[in-house]
Amino acid sequence: MSRFLNSKYAGMEPYVPGEQPRDMQYLKLNTNESPFPPSPKAVERAAAEAAKLMLYSDPELRDLMDTAEKAFGLSRRQMLFTNGSDEALDFAFRAFCGADCPAVFADVTYGFYKVFAQIHRIPYTVVPLREDFSLALEDYEGVPGTVFIANPNAPTGMALGRDELEAFVSRRSGLIVIDEAYVDFGGESCLPLIEKYDNLLVVQTFSKSRSLAGARLGMAFGCEALINDLNMIKYSSNPYNVNRMTMAAGIGALEDGEYFRANCKATADVREYFTTEMERLGFEVLPSKANFVFAKCPVLSGLGLYQTLKERGILIRHFETDRLRDWNRITIGTRAQMDTLLAAVKKIIDERSGA
Amino acid sequence: MSRFLNSKYAGMEPYVPGEQPRDMQYLKLNTNESPFPPSPKAVERAAAEAAKLMLYSDPELRDLMDTAEKAFGLSRRQMLFTNGSDEALDFAFRAFCGADCPAVFADVTYGFYKVFAQIHRIPYTVVPLREDFSLALEDYEGVPGTVFIANPNAPTGMALGRDELEAFVSRRSGLIVIDEAYVDFGGESCLPLIEKYDNLLVVQTFSKSRSLAGARLGMAFGCEALINDLNMIKYSSNPYNVNRMTMAAGIGALEDGEYFRANCKATADVREYFTTEMERLGFEVLPSKANFVFAKCPVLSGLGLYQTLKERGILIRHFETDRLRDWNRITIGTRAQMDTLLAAVKKIIDERSGA
Repeated sequence: MSRFLNSKYAGMEPYVPGEQPRDMQYLKLNTNESPFPPSPKAVERAAAEAAKLMLYSDPELRDLMDTAEKAFGLSRRQMLFTNGSDEALDFAFRAFCGADCPAVFADVTYGFYKVFAQIHRIPYTVVPLREDFSLALEDYEGVPGTVFIANPNAPTGMALGRDELEAFVSRRSGLIVIDEAYVDFGGESCLPLIEKYDNLLVVQTFSKSRSLAGARLGMAFGCEALINDLNMIKYSSNPYNVNRMTMAAGIGALEDGEYFRANCKATADVREYFTTEMERLGFEVLPSKANFVFAKCPVLSGLGLYQTLKERGILIRHFETDRLRDWNRITIGTRAQMDTLLAAVKKIIDERSGA
Repeated sequence: MSRFLNSKYAGMEPYVPGEQPRDMQYLKLNTNESPFPPSPKAVERAAAEAAKLMLYSDPELRDLMDTAEKAFGLSRRQMLFTNGSDEALDFAFRAFCGADCPAVFADVTYGFYKVFAQIHRIPYTVVPLREDFSLALEDYEGVPGTVFIANPNAPTGMALGRDELEAFVSRRSGLIVIDEAYVDFGGESCLPLIEKYDNLLVVQTFSKSRSLAGARLGMAFGCEALINDLNMIKYSSNPYNVNRMTMAAGIGALEDGEYFRANCKATADVREYFTTEMERLGFEVLPSKANFVFAKCPVLSGLGLYQTLKERGILIRHFETDRLRDWNRITIGTRAQMDTLLAAVKKIIDERSGA
């Protein structure tokens, strides 16, 4: 810390991204990346853009908006693109929370919500998940502020249905932000509700289901007034927030809806297979609609399983907090990758039980 | 504005990027882009990265840091990469200014400084340039706060020498941020002072001299404590702020020092030629060390010249503020592009004078 740092940041605890060790080649099932490469259309368009990089990107992203209007059936006035969905969430915290309007979110959810609240000195209310990790919307009744819900939730993978979310949105006067980073793998998106409710903002990402984690492209969807507010933040922070290559990759990804749907289905199928096999090995696995599962090992702590697998060349995610320390978040890769993990896990369990 | 927007943003005036009209093909001399394509090494590396976009970028940017350590002769602990230098500036305003520490900057300078101060509700003190648009460092004596100086300044192009800036840094206890977006075209960089002073932060960009405006890559250089502070903001906002393709383009650009230096020299040579020719046409031209000049037309207002040239397919930048309305900022392109502009300007002047 320098002597120039604003004292309001004392004690700030930044977000800790998933590890990317380089000591050896790992089977990476720790950061919810897609096992599939981006659509060939995305690769081709992004690569072709490299020769044009001396020119600024279009702050209005007109070409990408043209494609997105068709892909999502919405107007550009209802959409904002960002440098990853983290930036969309950051903008939303800044625009729609404040001293008089706390942020409200679950105790077990995307860890960045708390960081956004802290860095912007926004008061926040934590609403614990139920004992079984389910999110009960009635627990938010009477809690004032802007509500952030990851749906499906992370790291549990558990999802709420659109009907219950619509009922929640319709009876709440405050703003609700639904973070749908993982919705394409089997969840129900709230995008169809955008036209109907002015207190709903939906955030999505191209990182997971569209295989573009390394391109950084996120989106926010909402009524025109909400999008205008977010654009005010964008044009006061970083108008050229999305670069030319990422914009081109996004266009290619949206054009290739077939590839996108096939990959989502493949991941959902492998998830169901993997869940069954893990349960067979004695794991407790939460019902996931995401491209990961949250699982509890019958013989090792979360840290123990994480460490043992890492020694054997497989990375999964572990969170060393009270409610989560017995669990691990495991990204769904290809069938072959999950079979490699299953074999390693079976071996660990056999060794432990002296088999 | 939605009913959910935090009231603290009332009256906020976002930054207005240079126009990018699509009604016809213009000669674009309005946003200080390089007329040269990116280095072939940058293009090749960026394009090759497109197929790997399903994997997150490295938040630590280790490969880019390896190259940058060699290119700049500094340690990675003294450098931060950002999504364009606007993000580096945004982080600096957030980290190093606040209620007790105003931002201090010139009246005529990069227009975004005021926007950053306003969006983050940071008090700011404006120190006017002298009558001749020169920045007199003695005018900052006794003005408390974090000083932001664009060197060369925009939109004037005028530069301060490293010696006078070092004297300023050494006698001031507060932090000084030198924004060197345009330094490579003939200015003196303060990078060599980083090791010596802990109250100096230098910001640079790959947008201009390295032909990567559309890739969005900026840098901050400073002592380890300052860089740690900026990293705290980064890891609390957008840890994956630089995408894979941009990182690759940055590596390629830094590897090709010869191409970079040749382009900078070509631009400086054309600038000197263009300045002489414009003065011959009766323009007043400020002495520029940047890839643009600030010029005052003998027969038209700034708006008039801008509009007349736009009708004829040439875009230059105009700022409709009191001190600047008689002037225009003109980007330095290739010799051929500047000859096109000179011919158009000569024609306009001839028409006006009835020749």
